[in-house]
Amino acid sequence: MIFASDNWAGASAPVAAALAAAAAGMAPAYGSDAVTRTVEARFREVFERDVAVFLVTTGTAANALSLQALMRTAGMVICHEGAHIHGDEAGAVEFFSGGRLHPVPGAAGKLDADAVASAIGRYPAGGRNGRPVAVSLTQASELGTVYRPDEISAIADTARAAGLSVHMDGARFANALVSLGVSPAEMTWRAGVDVLSFGATKNGCWCAEAVVLFDPSRAEDLRYARQRAGQMVSKSRFLAAQFEAYLHGDHWLDNARHANAMARRLADGIVAGRFGRLNTPCEANEVFAILPDAARRRAEAAGARIYPWPPTGDAEVREGETLMRLVASFATSAEDVDRFLAILGDG
Amino acid sequence: MIFASDNWAGASAPVAAALAAAAAGMAPAYGSDAVTRTVEARFREVFERDVAVFLVTTGTAANALSLQALMRTAGMVICHEGAHIHGDEAGAVEFFSGGRLHPVPGAAGKLDADAVASAIGRYPAGGRNGRPVAVSLTQASELGTVYRPDEISAIADTARAAGLSVHMDGARFANALVSLGVSPAEMTWRAGVDVLSFGATKNGCWCAEAVVLFDPSRAEDLRYARQRAGQMVSKSRFLAAQFEAYLHGDHWLDNARHANAMARRLADGIVAGRFGRLNTPCEANEVFAILPDAARRRAEAAGARIYPWPPTGDAEVREGETLMRLVASFATSAEDVDRFLAILGDG
Amino acid sequence: MIFASDNWAGASAPVAAALAAAAAGMAPAYGSDAVTRTVEARFREVFERDVAVFLVTTGTAANALSLQALMRTAGMVICHEGAHIHGDEAGAVEFFSGGRLHPVPGAAGKLDADAVASAIGRYPAGGRNGRPVAVSLTQASELGTVYRPDEISAIADTARAAGLSVHMDGARFANALVSLGVSPAEMTWRAGVDVLSFGATKNGCWCAEAVVLFDPSRAEDLRYARQRAGQMVSKSRFLAAQFEAYLHGDHWLDNARHANAMARRLADGIVAGRFGRLNTPCEANEVFAILPDAARRRAEAAGARIYPWPPTGDAEVREGETLMRLVASFATSAEDVDRFLAILGDG
Amino acid sequence: MIFASDNWAGASAPVAAALAAAAAGMAPAYGSDAVTRTVEARFREVFERDVAVFLVTTGTAANALSLQALMRTAGMVICHEGAHIHGDEAGAVEFFSGGRLHPVPGAAGKLDADAVASAIGRYPAGGRNGRPVAVSLTQASELGTVYRPDEISAIADTARAAGLSVHMDGARFANALVSLGVSPAEMTWRAGVDVLSFGATKNGCWCAEAVVLFDPSRAEDLRYARQRAGQMVSKSRFLAAQFEAYLHGDHWLDNARHANAMARRLADGIVAGRFGRLNTPCEANEVFAILPDAARRRAEAAGARIYPWPPTGDAEVREGETLMRLVASFATSAEDVDRFLAILGDG
Repeated sequence: MIFASDNWAGASAPVAAALAAAAAGMAPAYGSDAVTRTVEARFREVFERDVAVFLVTTGTAANALSLQALMRTAGMVICHEGAHIHGDEAGAVEFFSGGRLHPVPGAAGKLDADAVASAIGRYPAGGRNGRPVAVSLTQASELGTVYRPDEISAIADTARAAGLSVHMDGARFANALVSLGVSPAEMTWRAGVDVLSFGATKNGCWCAEAVVLFDPSRAEDLRYARQRAGQMVSKSRFLAAQFEAYLHGDHWLDNARHANAMARRLADGIVAGRFGRLNTPCEANEVFAILPDAARRRAEAAGARIYPWPPTGDAEVREGETLMRLVASFATSAEDVDRFLAILGDG
Repeated sequence: MIFASDNWAGASAPVAAALAAAAAGMAPAYGSDAVTRTVEARFREVFERDVAVFLVTTGTAANALSLQALMRTAGMVICHEGAHIHGDEAGAVEFFSGGRLHPVPGAAGKLDADAVASAIGRYPAGGRNGRPVAVSLTQASELGTVYRPDEISAIADTARAAGLSVHMDGARFANALVSLGVSPAEMTWRAGVDVLSFGATKNGCWCAEAVVLFDPSRAEDLRYARQRAGQMVSKSRFLAAQFEAYLHGDHWLDNARHANAMARRLADGIVAGRFGRLNTPCEANEVFAILPDAARRRAEAAGARIYPWPPTGDAEVREGETLMRLVASFATSAEDVDRFLAILGDG
Repeated sequence: MIFASDNWAGASAPVAAALAAAAAGMAPAYGSDAVTRTVEARFREVFERDVAVFLVTTGTAANALSLQALMRTAGMVICHEGAHIHGDEAGAVEFFSGGRLHPVPGAAGKLDADAVASAIGRYPAGGRNGRPVAVSLTQASELGTVYRPDEISAIADTARAAGLSVHMDGARFANALVSLGVSPAEMTWRAGVDVLSFGATKNGCWCAEAVVLFDPSRAEDLRYARQRAGQMVSKSRFLAAQFEAYLHGDHWLDNARHANAMARRLADGIVAGRFGRLNTPCEANEVFAILPDAARRRAEAAGARIYPWPPTGDAEVREGETLMRLVASFATSAEDVDRFLAILGDG
Repeated sequence: MIFASDNWAGASAPVAAALAAAAAGMAPAYGSDAVTRTVEARFREVFERDVAVFLVTTGTAANALSLQALMRTAGMVICHEGAHIHGDEAGAVEFFSGGRLHPVPGAAGKLDADAVASAIGRYPAGGRNGRPVAVSLTQASELGTVYRPDEISAIADTARAAGLSVHMDGARFANALVSLGVSPAEMTWRAGVDVLSFGATKNGCWCAEAVVLFDPSRAEDLRYARQRAGQMVSKSRFLAAQFEAYLHGDHWLDNARHANAMARRLADGIVAGRFGRLNTPCEANEVFAILPDAARRRAEAAGARIYPWPPTGDAEVREGETLMRLVASFATSAEDVDRFLAILGDG
């Protein structure tokens, strides 16, 4: 009953097998191997257009390099106040890019176009305090919700009209994608996204993230930036092999569908059993539920691993309750979900 | 016949097996897993003292974080002019640490205490142009030679007397270690090294490097620095599992001994057959040989992968010759070495 | 009728005369001149203790270097959300120090100890998102209010208890000082301030700011930092001569008393004449008044230079009104104040 | 007998008078004052074209901002090994720009096109270690020599052909200009210079440097960069007033002609009297002379302030001799020169 985080899982069987198979033999280093070439082609196929792809080792690095690619002197990145880049990455974006973040609130963990417009308006042209250069949105969001393509477009249009670029932190890209049932293109560049942090670690890989540039003219700078950031893995097929297995056929989408289904099963069970209340809709692989502390203690005593989440503006958390985040992954079993629900209900 | 680099190899069988075994099951993330704890204890055993260990994904990151740990405002790091941090890392040390490098020449790819003293003398106290804060030496060096403990001590004593710290770039740490036949402690902190980049990737891992702090009081800063640099891998047991297998028993030393023996076989064969001349002594797993271009072309035509190396001050490279770097790894076979030698001699 | 800002004034007569007198003759450069020595001694006298003083050219540089002196890796500086370092310096603190700001709200432009404690609490030990390392408070505040020594002490005690240092942005240091009627020591180090940006430009100099370190052991790093930041003026007596005249006798305090008196005259006149309402108490040389737009237009038509200020949480600004900032300086005349008040009342 | 440096002088009479005159009255801040507008127009006149001008307080800041304007990720700036940016600015260029320097040797303190081409060749396209993005040359050079326009063009053509930009560190711009007898345009943009650090401090101002962009499209970024660097002086007319007086009529050129004539008088006197040997030709306002130590001691005993200079590759300094740098300024008198020569000859 591990619902602590999707990064408590290991690697999916196909990914593990791909790595084991790749271990033997020699291959050119520093991204010049054949598997990396294959993966780059697969990304073009997945996104139905030319893209520049940079494989890196962590989501933090992917975000920081992505926003470095969009930065200009004294630039600000508008993001949700709950964004991972703001609250969990120790200032990596600021360190890599030399810019700053401008966090804004937003219901259900999401930015909206009005909030973005208002933030942009804080920086009049010719002002002394810097300038907004990009918007970063997280898909799925930090509260387990998902931006619809029209919501992304509305934000991107607002950004673009003011000269800003758009970044998507896709740490849970696949979970959002299968939740919406749209194509990768529809969820990104067709909606106005310029640069994507494409996450694969949480959904079945060991350590495999990518920066995807929809404008390949930014690629030369990013190539140098990745090298300078210590993110150019020498035995590069090691990253590529994970991606090859991950993106083979529907493996990545299947993993995400399973994780989402498990989260849905959790959320539905909590609501149906009246074990607690949902703080935000369950739209991907995370459940944000307000649980009675007694139920939480029972679950923990039974070995469940779950974490509280800082109450956001959305939640009404009463005395004797806690907002908990419950995360499902490709490795979560229906048995564990049901057992957990049974314990919650066993009050 | 791949002698292009030791990073063309994949993962050793025990490392690959350990990763495969770790793929299943759940574990806490961000370095709080049990395997990471085990590996940290193993490092203390290997170095015979308390150390703080930070697992990271690349040698560039290990070097840059190590030197960030030693940096002070406007600080300079004295290094060999051929050092990897100076010529191959796109400015990562400068980017991470905010300091600069002061490269100096030195025979056979090595610094010596006099050159270090002379470089330090370039920055008188109270000067305007910054101050030396650390010396970085590469073990084994970029020209395949190895510092003896007394050479390291001489440099470290010179550094220490002037208030500088000492970093060792141990990308080929194991190769140097077995070459010298000394203990890890003798080659590092007992000789005056403060911070070590401990490389495992080139010697059997996929992607596994560590910063080892012999002064654990620097650990708190480094923990934040690693996070901010995007080097805190979420599924941390993935790095730890590689290290666990790598450092199990003598596996890492056996790998290095094999690689060194293959390099020695190459070097001896070249000298014995008068196929070329050694540019620098073969003391670890690399051979720097001046080969006739005709021999090089024959080898390449037969499928050998070898690279030229920029001539250094040491080499006398004549018309019709090229300085070549030949690198052996744990995965190099004696058959390949002998076949390569036969081709060189087949002129 | 210039109430736009205190930096619209030029230099006071004694400062201008001192510069003119210093123009002739030769003197050592880079801070080794005799006038700089004299000024440093004067600072020790003013603060009644040993201090390290670094003369620089702008308040932004003074703040950024001050906070660089207090920074640690991934560090956060807690400041008021209206602080100049947050809203007006284009990210200078982040750029110089490599750290980030954590802005918090607070009544009347001031932090309080509870808000500081709460911000500190957002960063639990061992957390991933960095750590608070300093509090920065602005004296006088950006809303023209002044921290009493006991308020400073309360904040500093809270900071110190959690291992944080304390910075004071004293762009209007003298104005606050004469407002409180305390000594420079009482308003700074005796209340727990570690580093001070000592502003002289707004109060009579052309271009003269200082970083004052109450812990001189930080001086060596800062000397290098100033040089690297392009803030080491070669003809250093040029800065020193301004400070010498500024700190001679009570000149600096007289200037501040005059400016404060003019602001008080403005504030009192507005209240007495019911021309508008004060947004925040007038405690130094700035008046934040909510004025009817008609009165504002009359004043502007008559040549007054005044600026609106973004409404803060404190102000109740109604339709047809605007929050205006009116700033007095050493060069403001009572005639201008009275003329301005007459126009406001002439509705 | 002060020949220590041209920054030991104060301000010229017209500059001092202009500052005194500007002290009274109010003016808009942050560069929006009328004097700044006038100075910008004067720069356009001086350079016979549109330029963007940014007034700053130090030459180090001017250089660092200039090169920040030309920087790209992991970029290298090729400069002479004796360049001020390499040896005297504590890493300011690296700090501001995030790039690195690639120093190269060159006779008489100057780069030549071949050395630049060779340095560029060290960074093949697609390489891992960064890329050259600019050449920086110092006019007059750190050894008192001057680049002819055709020499500048040759370097700039080489740079341009490889995609690099060209920066000129004009700390002694006027001295070089009057030495060559060419126009500012001929010595800069017509010869291929993109960005100029225009120095006025050493030649009669207190504290007045400018970044001149010959491509005004770079201006928006630089405006933010100056603000973020703490180089936007609030009472901006203070910088502008100095420039207004400096560039009025031929004042700046007259100052430089005088300084050059005094240096020439020194150099000629040393050669004619056989008091020592010139290390490099005297082409601006500096004399690099190898003097017998006995003569040096006599001069110092008589109160002369002169400094030794680290011997460069050019100088043959024998036992009992020292390479000395003797600098003349607008404030140097012929009497001092003659007295100094008499002492040298009085052996």
